[in-house]
Amino acid sequence: MNHSKLDFDRFSRIGLEDVNEILKQFLTKNKPCLLTRLSENKVNQIDSLIQEKIEYCSISNTAFFNFPDHSLSEEKKVAVLCAGSSDLSVAYEAIRTLSYSGKNSLNLFDIGVSGLWRLTEKLEQIQTTSVVIAIAGMDAALPTVLGGLISQPIIAVPTSVGYGVSKGGHTALNALLASCSSGMTVVNIDNGYGAACAALRILKIS
Amino acid sequence: MNHSKLDFDRFSRIGLEDVNEILKQFLTKNKPCLLTRLSENKVNQIDSLIQEKIEYCSISNTAFFNFPDHSLSEEKKVAVLCAGSSDLSVAYEAIRTLSYSGKNSLNLFDIGVSGLWRLTEKLEQIQTTSVVIAIAGMDAALPTVLGGLISQPIIAVPTSVGYGVSKGGHTALNALLASCSSGMTVVNIDNGYGAACAALRILKIS
Amino acid sequence: MNHSKLDFDRFSRIGLEDVNEILKQFLTKNKPCLLTRLSENKVNQIDSLIQEKIEYCSISNTAFFNFPDHSLSEEKKVAVLCAGSSDLSVAYEAIRTLSYSGKNSLNLFDIGVSGLWRLTEKLEQIQTTSVVIAIAGMDAALPTVLGGLISQPIIAVPTSVGYGVSKGGHTALNALLASCSSGMTVVNIDNGYGAACAALRILKIS
Amino acid sequence: MNHSKLDFDRFSRIGLEDVNEILKQFLTKNKPCLLTRLSENKVNQIDSLIQEKIEYCSISNTAFFNFPDHSLSEEKKVAVLCAGSSDLSVAYEAIRTLSYSGKNSLNLFDIGVSGLWRLTEKLEQIQTTSVVIAIAGMDAALPTVLGGLISQPIIAVPTSVGYGVSKGGHTALNALLASCSSGMTVVNIDNGYGAACAALRILKIS
Amino acid sequence: MNHSKLDFDRFSRIGLEDVNEILKQFLTKNKPCLLTRLSENKVNQIDSLIQEKIEYCSISNTAFFNFPDHSLSEEKKVAVLCAGSSDLSVAYEAIRTLSYSGKNSLNLFDIGVSGLWRLTEKLEQIQTTSVVIAIAGMDAALPTVLGGLISQPIIAVPTSVGYGVSKGGHTALNALLASCSSGMTVVNIDNGYGAACAALRILKIS
Amino acid sequence: MNHSKLDFDRFSRIGLEDVNEILKQFLTKNKPCLLTRLSENKVNQIDSLIQEKIEYCSISNTAFFNFPDHSLSEEKKVAVLCAGSSDLSVAYEAIRTLSYSGKNSLNLFDIGVSGLWRLTEKLEQIQTTSVVIAIAGMDAALPTVLGGLISQPIIAVPTSVGYGVSKGGHTALNALLASCSSGMTVVNIDNGYGAACAALRILKIS
Amino acid sequence: MNHSKLDFDRFSRIGLEDVNEILKQFLTKNKPCLLTRLSENKVNQIDSLIQEKIEYCSISNTAFFNFPDHSLSEEKKVAVLCAGSSDLSVAYEAIRTLSYSGKNSLNLFDIGVSGLWRLTEKLEQIQTTSVVIAIAGMDAALPTVLGGLISQPIIAVPTSVGYGVSKGGHTALNALLASCSSGMTVVNIDNGYGAACAALRILKIS
Amino acid sequence: MNHSKLDFDRFSRIGLEDVNEILKQFLTKNKPCLLTRLSENKVNQIDSLIQEKIEYCSISNTAFFNFPDHSLSEEKKVAVLCAGSSDLSVAYEAIRTLSYSGKNSLNLFDIGVSGLWRLTEKLEQIQTTSVVIAIAGMDAALPTVLGGLISQPIIAVPTSVGYGVSKGGHTALNALLASCSSGMTVVNIDNGYGAACAALRILKIS
Repeated sequence: MNHSKLDFDRFSRIGLEDVNEILKQFLTKNKPCLLTRLSENKVNQIDSLIQEKIEYCSISNTAFFNFPDHSLSEEKKVAVLCAGSSDLSVAYEAIRTLSYSGKNSLNLFDIGVSGLWRLTEKLEQIQTTSVVIAIAGMDAALPTVLGGLISQPIIAVPTSVGYGVSKGGHTALNALLASCSSGMTVVNIDNGYGAACAALRILKIS
Repeated sequence: MNHSKLDFDRFSRIGLEDVNEILKQFLTKNKPCLLTRLSENKVNQIDSLIQEKIEYCSISNTAFFNFPDHSLSEEKKVAVLCAGSSDLSVAYEAIRTLSYSGKNSLNLFDIGVSGLWRLTEKLEQIQTTSVVIAIAGMDAALPTVLGGLISQPIIAVPTSVGYGVSKGGHTALNALLASCSSGMTVVNIDNGYGAACAALRILKIS
Repeated sequence: MNHSKLDFDRFSRIGLEDVNEILKQFLTKNKPCLLTRLSENKVNQIDSLIQEKIEYCSISNTAFFNFPDHSLSEEKKVAVLCAGSSDLSVAYEAIRTLSYSGKNSLNLFDIGVSGLWRLTEKLEQIQTTSVVIAIAGMDAALPTVLGGLISQPIIAVPTSVGYGVSKGGHTALNALLASCSSGMTVVNIDNGYGAACAALRILKIS
Repeated sequence: MNHSKLDFDRFSRIGLEDVNEILKQFLTKNKPCLLTRLSENKVNQIDSLIQEKIEYCSISNTAFFNFPDHSLSEEKKVAVLCAGSSDLSVAYEAIRTLSYSGKNSLNLFDIGVSGLWRLTEKLEQIQTTSVVIAIAGMDAALPTVLGGLISQPIIAVPTSVGYGVSKGGHTALNALLASCSSGMTVVNIDNGYGAACAALRILKIS
Repeated sequence: MNHSKLDFDRFSRIGLEDVNEILKQFLTKNKPCLLTRLSENKVNQIDSLIQEKIEYCSISNTAFFNFPDHSLSEEKKVAVLCAGSSDLSVAYEAIRTLSYSGKNSLNLFDIGVSGLWRLTEKLEQIQTTSVVIAIAGMDAALPTVLGGLISQPIIAVPTSVGYGVSKGGHTALNALLASCSSGMTVVNIDNGYGAACAALRILKIS
Repeated sequence: MNHSKLDFDRFSRIGLEDVNEILKQFLTKNKPCLLTRLSENKVNQIDSLIQEKIEYCSISNTAFFNFPDHSLSEEKKVAVLCAGSSDLSVAYEAIRTLSYSGKNSLNLFDIGVSGLWRLTEKLEQIQTTSVVIAIAGMDAALPTVLGGLISQPIIAVPTSVGYGVSKGGHTALNALLASCSSGMTVVNIDNGYGAACAALRILKIS
Repeated sequence: MNHSKLDFDRFSRIGLEDVNEILKQFLTKNKPCLLTRLSENKVNQIDSLIQEKIEYCSISNTAFFNFPDHSLSEEKKVAVLCAGSSDLSVAYEAIRTLSYSGKNSLNLFDIGVSGLWRLTEKLEQIQTTSVVIAIAGMDAALPTVLGGLISQPIIAVPTSVGYGVSKGGHTALNALLASCSSGMTVVNIDNGYGAACAALRILKIS
Repeated sequence: MNHSKLDFDRFSRIGLEDVNEILKQFLTKNKPCLLTRLSENKVNQIDSLIQEKIEYCSISNTAFFNFPDHSLSEEKKVAVLCAGSSDLSVAYEAIRTLSYSGKNSLNLFDIGVSGLWRLTEKLEQIQTTSVVIAIAGMDAALPTVLGGLISQPIIAVPTSVGYGVSKGGHTALNALLASCSSGMTVVNIDNGYGAACAALRILKIS
């Protein structure tokens, strides 16, 4: 990937001044950067000079840093699908990453298989895209059902939503890897950023 | 449950003569018995006197022992559903247990969600039953999709089919417990017998 | 199930204003809704307009939202059993879900197998119901013992009570799935709501 | 412990001639030895000279080697309890270890909690002993129920009986460790030998 | 056990007023009670009337409630051993439970196997007791080494001390169950209370 | 996917006659079929009539059944990479699946990161393809290193090679999901077939 | 090791006054001590008398206590390598431990395999040292690649950085143990102290 | 490492003719090779031409292939220690690897901590070596105790000996990583080869 990205989760053990230092280097070199897993709380603690260069999204905990104005592609080549509000955070991490690379996306957030019609009535629209990012937690049945209905590449993202056996997202991850719908691929739990990067790799060759 | 049942898995550490001894006691008392997890190989090693009282099913590895002729109920109050040949063994363990208790069942073996129409075209037929036993391995998406389409009790049975993350059936088990379709219940991996017993408990009160 | 339900656990990553928005839509359409896993802390942060339509239960962290006055069935067709105060929260999640659907329940909260007589002296009373929800953490022995004593459907709910090997409820879950009492079914850890839904599915056909 | 013991499981990677060599050293020094986890198949491959000094038990896969005639204590200070034929192998490993140390034991093999009366009608007899070894697989509910009924030391042995979540005995092990009956202790899965040694340590001080 | 005990961990989901209620019932009936896993923070929130009947120990998070003055046995029949300050909390939970039952104990807190002499120089003293409670976290090597040196009953308690693979205490638990020193028994992680109860069961018969 | 495929792993519990029956139906309808996880031993037991329609590959345990002569694409749009002989079986399952769909592939089998130059000297050749299937067991470092060097889509396949912590392939799977090279996607352990299907989905849109 | 070390993680359950007490004993005996896993927050709560004898490092959460001025070896016999800011904390725990023992080290913090050149351009410098401590989280590919390029002893330290399957560091740990680069050894997750001690053991014999 | 090594475990899925082919290439190039995890059964199936160039060791399942006569170093710089016959196979894999590199070793096979004196009486002899390979299964207490007694580098090898919680060697592995003796390092379960390679890396710099 030809863009810079900083995962704030990985900064948890170093002091805030060090984070400020790293970001200032981007300013000095006048380079943009995508920030992920950045809590609203952390944003508020950052140097005001840096803060004003930050375009923050609180749903996905991402930020565009020192990023020039830009418009997105008109065409929506990637579909980002999920079943409901609990997966929105991961969905927006993917959407923001695509957006950072200038790609618009078809976003559908109410596609749960416990109400099948919600999926089937959107099928035609989904088939107009080139790549599908399907986000699902708990039993993660959505991507499997989808896999039997469309022929595009499907990148599935398990989420850490839920309690008991769902907790942590490992059940969703394993269910996706075990899926009986062939040709689906999977990324790490909650990894909306990685799914978007995988979609960008595919778009690059198509 | 008012019937006797012997799980041959639990006999693995005691000698064959002891198994023969136990079965002879049933003969002496002239009591029938349901045998489960009994391999074809083991059947052939049993005393011929006992063997001739055995009505064996090689798909499910079950046997009716010293069981009188009997006819099944005409009505099919239980549906036994699975997605394909890999789950047949568990499906038949359930069917045979129901049959041992005199219950006929509606058996549908090609109901996989990777081809949704196979499920939807059988929906009306499934809705004529009182209880549904839904058997599924790998990502176990079938019972979840079913849960959104019908209102009867659903007893889900995870199976140990598959390789990699599917191996052993724990992914299927967890996906079923995490299911976003509410009101579904689950039994142990490959436990067709237990699912049938649960269905019988429900039929008893209905 | 023909009722709406919102699990607040799944809202953890979206802002409070979004939650308010979702609930306002229920008000606008004048529809009731059952809220689960809703902490007292969260209730206090919700818009006062919405708050006054909330009938909150702090033991179970559930709320009836925009729910009309209603009376419960006289007959108690479901028994909700647990061993002590540590499982009360899950028990009340089940009781409240039943209550939301208009069903009264027989609630017994001191039925632990480490003191067998507490269970046996209530047996007759339990046998007057149609379905039993048995809630148990740690080694979860209660439902197993119960399974040998009654013939009704038993829906077992493992709880996440305890420390060490008990922590998280997986030991209780597995012990229930492995139970030597046949015909018992199981739902996800702490899933009182799901157990109640399963009971409602059974009552519907009986 | 002042006796010698050889676990044949630990010999799986060394050749048979080495095993013969080790045993011959016992003969030379005229010392007895307790052999555990010794399959019938292995016994038959051992040197005939050594074989005739072996007193083998095929249920427990144990052998007394070069052991003088001896009589057991009249009093039965240890009770060895299990629920059925599947746990017999482990029960006999404990019984044989006690017997090797000259201790008689009260052996009850049909004490399952899915049929409570089988346990309660033997209670008085169990209370005449000083230490109880309670062996149980699957959900391992027996020792928990027992713990509430008697005041002696209880050494619980989980067994690896069963399939699905029971497989390997870890569910039984964890259920025993999580038991709500206080003061019970636990040994490794299938470790009948270890349980007997623990009982002998207790008898030594009493 | 003929004493009452309340585990505050199990009260985490019910309100404080309910806890007060339960304790008041003990006052009314003038019964004593042992409280475990009770944080200092919780003690301060309890009704002052109840608080003054509480004799709190902040190392072990235990309290004697409504407990009459009593003196301990002169003889020390139980040894409570651990390797250092990190296991003190569990050690004191055991000591306090013994003390609640009137038993004095030999307490040695600096017995780690990474400095063998610390153990060997106390060996003779340890051998004067009847039962040994050995508490150990991380690799839990202490009880194993001890097992080869003494012949009394050893109750091993794994602790949840440490980070990485030690975290949660499961490594210590498994190492103790796998111990090559025969006749050692084990209780749940951090379960000092349970270990003391097991010791009391043994003392009762000796 | 528009081709039929039968996984013989899933047939393990049904009799051979049933397998013959299923394959005969393909003959009757004159349809081809791809067979996977088919052991040489099983091939030899199949009906001779069916056997002669089978084109078997013993490295990958796959077979083309009733498949017409066909030539592969000249262009190699997919690269199939692995580190050595231990991953060959999975590599060939992918290659055969591509071949069944008429796709030629660039196959490189000696690309291990413990000898970095083996990878770097092939880099240019790899960059001529559109999609890369990277197969790796044990610590699965190959796809991560590759991810930093090329910009095409990478489908990583963990393999179950190895012993100790490698056993079963879960370490390789998790290492691939955790990879610090962004935009890589993963399929189930040993799932060469699934990786090829994912590559075919990508080729279809490019 | 001939130095004293106190891990503050292990003090979490004892009161602060006890910690003060322990440290005062070092002062009294005029002995130095290395403190690890000591949060900045805890430092501030310690007695001022003790605080002024503390030389704290907030990146590694370590402190030299009552430590005399000392200069480090000129030669850098140990290399401490990691891939980025997320592993800095563990790297500094190792560096500080070496420094406490008077050893200087070659510290390189930007050696990630997703950008291979960063490693290869530093190779010659690394080869001037005697022992390499390689710290890596997530998929932990760095030490494996390194293992094929250098011949010195490599001590690998997995770190608990990351989310999803990376969480807790177990994936990094297992990937390192499974590494195809032979002769690498591993310590516990985040155990920079242990890795430094292992390096010191090696330096002692060289 | 500058020697070639073939792990036969990794050949399990390719045909025997391929193995023969690989070995013939070594003959052609007249290069020696170390073979590991090679069962006696497999040796007998290899081409006779190749067989006669094999110097096989049945305890360790290793072979020197096409290896010239050579004598070992007189000095024993490496100690290989284990507790008994069950770990011999792994011990010999280490010894043979050292021997292949021309290194003699001090081999002590009866050093179990359940009989402490066996270790302490050999301590002085162990201290004459430069590196210690300590092999241990089950609770793996030996290396921990050793760590407190000697100052050389210790490479610990967990073994997969045992049943129940010991099975597979993960308990031994974790106990070693959690060891309270600082500066010990660990390799994969049963990896005698890797431990020897690590020792060779250390010897190279000393």
